[in-house]
Amino acid sequence: MFHWRVEDRTDAIRHHCGVMGISAEEDVNLPELLFYGLFSLQHRGQESAGIAYHRHGRIVSYRDVGMVASALSHYLKENHPSRVGIGHVRYSTHGTNKLENAQPIVVSCNKGEISLAHNGNLSNSDELTRSLIAGGSIFQSTTDTELLLHLIARSPRPDFRGALLDCLGLIEGAYCFLVLHGDTLFAVRDPLGFRPLVIGRRDGMVMVASETCALGLFQPEEIREVEPGEILEIQGSRITSSRLPDRPATAGRRAHCIFELIYFARPDSEVFGHSVHLVRKRMGAMIARDDPSPGDLVIPVPDSGSSAALGYANASGVELEHGLTRNHYMGRTFIQPTPALRELGVRMKLHPVRQAIAGRRITVIDDSLVRGTTSRQMVRLLREAGAREVHLRLSSPPLRFPCFFGIDIPTREELIANRLEPDGIAREIGADSVRFLSLEALRGCVDRPDDYCTACFSGEYPCPVMDAPVHRTN
Amino acid sequence: MFHWRVEDRTDAIRHHCGVMGISAEEDVNLPELLFYGLFSLQHRGQESAGIAYHRHGRIVSYRDVGMVASALSHYLKENHPSRVGIGHVRYSTHGTNKLENAQPIVVSCNKGEISLAHNGNLSNSDELTRSLIAGGSIFQSTTDTELLLHLIARSPRPDFRGALLDCLGLIEGAYCFLVLHGDTLFAVRDPLGFRPLVIGRRDGMVMVASETCALGLFQPEEIREVEPGEILEIQGSRITSSRLPDRPATAGRRAHCIFELIYFARPDSEVFGHSVHLVRKRMGAMIARDDPSPGDLVIPVPDSGSSAALGYANASGVELEHGLTRNHYMGRTFIQPTPALRELGVRMKLHPVRQAIAGRRITVIDDSLVRGTTSRQMVRLLREAGAREVHLRLSSPPLRFPCFFGIDIPTREELIANRLEPDGIAREIGADSVRFLSLEALRGCVDRPDDYCTACFSGEYPCPVMDAPVHRTN
Amino acid sequence: MFHWRVEDRTDAIRHHCGVMGISAEEDVNLPELLFYGLFSLQHRGQESAGIAYHRHGRIVSYRDVGMVASALSHYLKENHPSRVGIGHVRYSTHGTNKLENAQPIVVSCNKGEISLAHNGNLSNSDELTRSLIAGGSIFQSTTDTELLLHLIARSPRPDFRGALLDCLGLIEGAYCFLVLHGDTLFAVRDPLGFRPLVIGRRDGMVMVASETCALGLFQPEEIREVEPGEILEIQGSRITSSRLPDRPATAGRRAHCIFELIYFARPDSEVFGHSVHLVRKRMGAMIARDDPSPGDLVIPVPDSGSSAALGYANASGVELEHGLTRNHYMGRTFIQPTPALRELGVRMKLHPVRQAIAGRRITVIDDSLVRGTTSRQMVRLLREAGAREVHLRLSSPPLRFPCFFGIDIPTREELIANRLEPDGIAREIGADSVRFLSLEALRGCVDRPDDYCTACFSGEYPCPVMDAPVHRTN
Amino acid sequence: MFHWRVEDRTDAIRHHCGVMGISAEEDVNLPELLFYGLFSLQHRGQESAGIAYHRHGRIVSYRDVGMVASALSHYLKENHPSRVGIGHVRYSTHGTNKLENAQPIVVSCNKGEISLAHNGNLSNSDELTRSLIAGGSIFQSTTDTELLLHLIARSPRPDFRGALLDCLGLIEGAYCFLVLHGDTLFAVRDPLGFRPLVIGRRDGMVMVASETCALGLFQPEEIREVEPGEILEIQGSRITSSRLPDRPATAGRRAHCIFELIYFARPDSEVFGHSVHLVRKRMGAMIARDDPSPGDLVIPVPDSGSSAALGYANASGVELEHGLTRNHYMGRTFIQPTPALRELGVRMKLHPVRQAIAGRRITVIDDSLVRGTTSRQMVRLLREAGAREVHLRLSSPPLRFPCFFGIDIPTREELIANRLEPDGIAREIGADSVRFLSLEALRGCVDRPDDYCTACFSGEYPCPVMDAPVHRTN
Repeated sequence: MFHWRVEDRTDAIRHHCGVMGISAEEDVNLPELLFYGLFSLQHRGQESAGIAYHRHGRIVSYRDVGMVASALSHYLKENHPSRVGIGHVRYSTHGTNKLENAQPIVVSCNKGEISLAHNGNLSNSDELTRSLIAGGSIFQSTTDTELLLHLIARSPRPDFRGALLDCLGLIEGAYCFLVLHGDTLFAVRDPLGFRPLVIGRRDGMVMVASETCALGLFQPEEIREVEPGEILEIQGSRITSSRLPDRPATAGRRAHCIFELIYFARPDSEVFGHSVHLVRKRMGAMIARDDPSPGDLVIPVPDSGSSAALGYANASGVELEHGLTRNHYMGRTFIQPTPALRELGVRMKLHPVRQAIAGRRITVIDDSLVRGTTSRQMVRLLREAGAREVHLRLSSPPLRFPCFFGIDIPTREELIANRLEPDGIAREIGADSVRFLSLEALRGCVDRPDDYCTACFSGEYPCPVMDAPVHRTN
Repeated sequence: MFHWRVEDRTDAIRHHCGVMGISAEEDVNLPELLFYGLFSLQHRGQESAGIAYHRHGRIVSYRDVGMVASALSHYLKENHPSRVGIGHVRYSTHGTNKLENAQPIVVSCNKGEISLAHNGNLSNSDELTRSLIAGGSIFQSTTDTELLLHLIARSPRPDFRGALLDCLGLIEGAYCFLVLHGDTLFAVRDPLGFRPLVIGRRDGMVMVASETCALGLFQPEEIREVEPGEILEIQGSRITSSRLPDRPATAGRRAHCIFELIYFARPDSEVFGHSVHLVRKRMGAMIARDDPSPGDLVIPVPDSGSSAALGYANASGVELEHGLTRNHYMGRTFIQPTPALRELGVRMKLHPVRQAIAGRRITVIDDSLVRGTTSRQMVRLLREAGAREVHLRLSSPPLRFPCFFGIDIPTREELIANRLEPDGIAREIGADSVRFLSLEALRGCVDRPDDYCTACFSGEYPCPVMDAPVHRTN
Repeated sequence: MFHWRVEDRTDAIRHHCGVMGISAEEDVNLPELLFYGLFSLQHRGQESAGIAYHRHGRIVSYRDVGMVASALSHYLKENHPSRVGIGHVRYSTHGTNKLENAQPIVVSCNKGEISLAHNGNLSNSDELTRSLIAGGSIFQSTTDTELLLHLIARSPRPDFRGALLDCLGLIEGAYCFLVLHGDTLFAVRDPLGFRPLVIGRRDGMVMVASETCALGLFQPEEIREVEPGEILEIQGSRITSSRLPDRPATAGRRAHCIFELIYFARPDSEVFGHSVHLVRKRMGAMIARDDPSPGDLVIPVPDSGSSAALGYANASGVELEHGLTRNHYMGRTFIQPTPALRELGVRMKLHPVRQAIAGRRITVIDDSLVRGTTSRQMVRLLREAGAREVHLRLSSPPLRFPCFFGIDIPTREELIANRLEPDGIAREIGADSVRFLSLEALRGCVDRPDDYCTACFSGEYPCPVMDAPVHRTN
Repeated sequence: MFHWRVEDRTDAIRHHCGVMGISAEEDVNLPELLFYGLFSLQHRGQESAGIAYHRHGRIVSYRDVGMVASALSHYLKENHPSRVGIGHVRYSTHGTNKLENAQPIVVSCNKGEISLAHNGNLSNSDELTRSLIAGGSIFQSTTDTELLLHLIARSPRPDFRGALLDCLGLIEGAYCFLVLHGDTLFAVRDPLGFRPLVIGRRDGMVMVASETCALGLFQPEEIREVEPGEILEIQGSRITSSRLPDRPATAGRRAHCIFELIYFARPDSEVFGHSVHLVRKRMGAMIARDDPSPGDLVIPVPDSGSSAALGYANASGVELEHGLTRNHYMGRTFIQPTPALRELGVRMKLHPVRQAIAGRRITVIDDSLVRGTTSRQMVRLLREAGAREVHLRLSSPPLRFPCFFGIDIPTREELIANRLEPDGIAREIGADSVRFLSLEALRGCVDRPDDYCTACFSGEYPCPVMDAPVHRTN
């Protein structure tokens, strides 16, 4: 296990990306199919969306900022027959949301035209980038995604497939790559299996996606995980599987991101072999077992705490109540209130159901606690609505360490759990009590807990991580 | 009670409108405040949004098609000081979504400049319109909303206030009017109290809105219903209340739309003196009491069946499960799939949680059944996910009659409950059983059940209704 | 002749509107044809555009703010078969550019559904509006256009045609109306013939438009003016002509707006029987005859002075030079420079051709002088480019009086010709000399000069005008 | 001199790009200044626009498709202080208008962060690209522009400045580069001086642009051409000039694109030391001298033939007439007519002034003849308007050869002058006669004619050109 050192990261927890690939035996309106798949992955990235597909021997691509429906909709006015393509949704993780960073990217190089969509974060990208830059490569974006393409172009192996395999051997960290080369779709998942990637098949069509929820639409006859370290080469509906060579340091190990189960994935997805919803219910049940709250009513913070709250209620026998509702019209186009009205803005998302809450001792269930600012507002709302007591229970341990594998977590200093013990947190946010699920209990919620990365809670990283990021400009 | 005769109406159940008015003692950025209020009423109308406010002795207005955030956002770039204004969100109920029909409308007439926002449906509008048209009035929209303004302009009473009162005496049906005249805001609710309208007050500011959820943002010190038949005249923060004269036919009677409690209103609102969420829970409990299902798992259709399912689970002791999830990114901008992919489209909104459902006998709770097409898809999804049995329970009686007071209900022929008995419906949608809440049980869920209009279930209308709509063009 | 009294008007000279109507024997894609016609009338109104056409017994309409290409383009994605329709382009003449004021407007009244497009300005609209408002009519826009529709609806004549004729007898001033009623298109021009209106015919199709340039596209077999006081009733390609009854006060008189020839109309149009371009050349020649400039080079202000400058050059023998160019990309979407850079903004439209100007004595020809602010900038540009002398010649007399017939002219105080004599103007704008075409010479440029309204120069109005506008709100 | 061989190119003559750079001693709102400059270069590229500027040690960039006003306008809502930046307008020359090809591009490489804007076309780019690709570079666009950046990144010279100089030595063809590195702006023009590039200075600010018209806005105290082969290094307002080493093959030679004078540049610009307008007048005069037309009226095709027609008229004594007008609202947003109405579309741009033309023998002056399709329409318009004879005169020689230096010229087969002699062309387009300016006469219009590239007329290329373009994908 490896330990981290401080560095600077900003923003709240946000997830990087979602990917989708489709390969069919015959021409279909591929952009439309990708559109539906990406739409189901919208929760994994709302900053930009893009697609790339094979047509008449070339790769056609389109990317834009915004949600799937607005970014890609005008592309769907016509039929675009194709047999194979990939798509991507993305969070911007470095401040501005530059179109330059949208994916899939398409390049021409000595291995031909290649398009790439990526979900993850490479842990040795700075080192590799430094070396490529020293060797004269130029980078047009601030993402990891260009990196693999540069490596492939630099590879002495003349064939694309060989070069891809070689280069995958050079990179470390969390990745799910969908790569389009000619009419072949490659799908690759890192050996530790950080991020989810699944594959499904239905008469004459193969679909690959970050989560099963994107495959369900297509009513697949079979679905399975792409194995950690597996490389799929898909032509038409024919799938050839091979494996990345294991590395000594990590041979046979897994490091599934446990935060996918806690927060990122959609509850109706099956991730790492678990129903996300059922795992979350189990987390709620664990809280009830280990750290029962004096509350006589349990309410979820919608939607992130819904599954866990149901599990808590079932396990504890405490009455479940929908005491908070959420305005789902609150999207990316929403206008930020002027400073004078900022507090109004906060109240537009979550709303207490006064008559259900008044006079009750409330146990509120949420998935995690980052800075504590939203929780403070929520506790205030509940008290104004008449709650007699407010006890906050989190279905995850205290968040205290940065993630180097694709999750944007604020700096160590900003994480409230690094500043305060649960009682101090309760005081700061105005709650009567605050309790976290223990790491041990969390591990108890999954099969083979050693197959998970829990570094954001424990600081124990599954592979070496850098001290500080290197800027690509010298 | 009055009985209906057949006429032609199209489309599924849709609700008309939401209104919001604000009056303050001093200048505030009124468009911004209205924006937040309307945003909280977005569920009441997503086709167009508009605001009108008083500034420098004139009424300034802005309306556009689309959701609140897009239709009004660019209006918020600057400060627009004003003391009083009104806003509106709207469903288009007649096919095309014409901007001409957006509200508030603003007119100049012999009573001065007037702006009007309306939620409801007048039952004698055809008769009045016919008379006005015969007398030489011209109509620029296809809405009821112009009607009151024409009547006011035609009134022999020289003063606006007197004319308003007189004209309100001429109209029948369901209405909540917000009227802006000079710097005075009038709020009127019909004597039968079909639609909800509430008023709140906070230091120096008065807010009127269709639902309490729009007032909550402003943290009002007090909230009450605008009484049926009440007319509020608001200047600054001073409120003067008076009453419409009672009519013999309806004196002392009420006809609150029970569908507001079943489906329209937001669960965190308090409508007709009830917490919407708690009434819905009661409906669910009533189903459990009167018509228990053999299911061993109860799941809501999100979000419309969530409260009732919780009530059912509590009352029956049957385990509650979130067995269906919903993609909330599905908004108005969503692209309709091409015909070839229509079935995909249906599957993009609701998703089964397979592992929670497989092998179980499911009781699904929804609020109402209109044509049955969506329910058929949902039952199919649940069966594909492995449900052993699927029992559908509705928290409302069979929908069988048209609404003349603002709810768009399909024609009698299209309503599945007019064609089939529950068992026939079950066969048609593929469920193992289908049961409706009885009208008696529904009435038992509210205080003073006689104060409610249940005509869409019973065919007994609280006031005379027309046989057929009259086209305004001759 | 009638004399005016002061009132308040704002803004520079702007023209109101352009209209286009088409009637065909068989279905054509009418919106597309109207689009092309309106596009050719774009110079007559750039604030909003709209169309209305007959389809399946109803009038379908669409209006939006913006230029023709953007306001109407998305309407053209599909075919909309129809036999008859009208269109409109509009300048907003009262500050804000409200969509409510866009045309054609469509109303339902006791004469049926009617759509109206209007170019002109009624001189007794305040009186009529006052009377209609007193009688209970409501106005939803601030334009004259609603007026005729109210009158028609109020007319005791039961038939539309009769009512139209009666009501036309009530109104005075400048108007060209296109009226759509059922499948009949009416085209009416006021008895004094203020604004141009022409009609053309081509196999099975009749086209009416403000200017011949909009007809040319359709390669008409014949074109003629709609006569002053003529009413055309068009069904399919059949045209029935009748005449408004003459009024004693204006019997047999004409009052063509001479500013159409000076500035508004497109040079390739034929207006009031004249080629606009050739009349403007004649104006230039008159300047050369009456008030020759000492300049040894004559340059037009593009594009408004181009024709007159050519006429001046030909008549005087002075060399013509394109000494100023214009950036035609400068459209409505153009961003106003920040105050700090305002002067840059001015320089983005007109550009001197330095080498053609340097050291020369320049005679600059423009069409008219309003406030003088732009001319001052232009003179400065020419001097910076090295002009030795700058002599400004205007192809119209001093503008000193307001127009009540559709032209927005600034207030009397703002008109530079009301403050200063030519020499004073020259000093104020920095020119070596400024001379205007005399009214007598201007009249000499047209056939039958008494048939023209020259009130903006002479203050002699062809019909009575009001002292002050009446606000429609009391 | 070098000769060409056939290859495939599509589309009519279009020009590539315009560039603008600004460097100031102190912070200014640089995006706004670039916006104005680019707006004046809009005629050089209407497909996309972009800017890049230095701020807080980083390069900030923004690019979008569309005209300057729409692509960059929303960027101007706020102040963005900066001291140095570059901008670009672009034509797409290869079918689709991909945002990926918009400029300036920004990359990170071993020489730091670099932004580049380019106007021109490299003649050895295929060879260099092939070599870079072989060496492992990846290309993300289909433009030449990435090429220089790849070369710089690959250069063994460690310093940016040295690498830039070395790499400029490797490339051949037509180029004007603006390069932003740190807070330094480099401006480079190729040794043959194909494309124009000028520099101006004004208190504390240096401006570089493709044409003088973009500098005029800023009222520069001095303007000069960037010399062919000159490299300017600009920091604040300090300019350091150096020179590219001459190559034996082209030492001391110049190859200014004569088409800039004939058609591309704005008439008010001064290009290659000439007033564009005056050179065009001279071309017109030469036609009059060498090949006088029997026409008794000379009219320009607006706006491209305006200057030459004036020169022709002055030299010949034949009367000038504005016999054709142009609809300047015809912009990029214009909708293409449906096929059934295509001919209407053609008539929407050019309009004859009938009364000025009827019965006359017309000499029409245009700048050049490509495929002849538009000319055929124009001749028809003139005949329909009554022209007795139509004689077309072109102010350039027959276009017969492709350009390898940045001008998109249709294939050899499509160029009408490759198929027909002037008399044959006259027959094909319906004119009474067609004559071209001879190459000798054209050369006589400029000082030092040997300093010009006239390859599109003569086939004699100023430097070696490739036989066929190489696709970058293998």
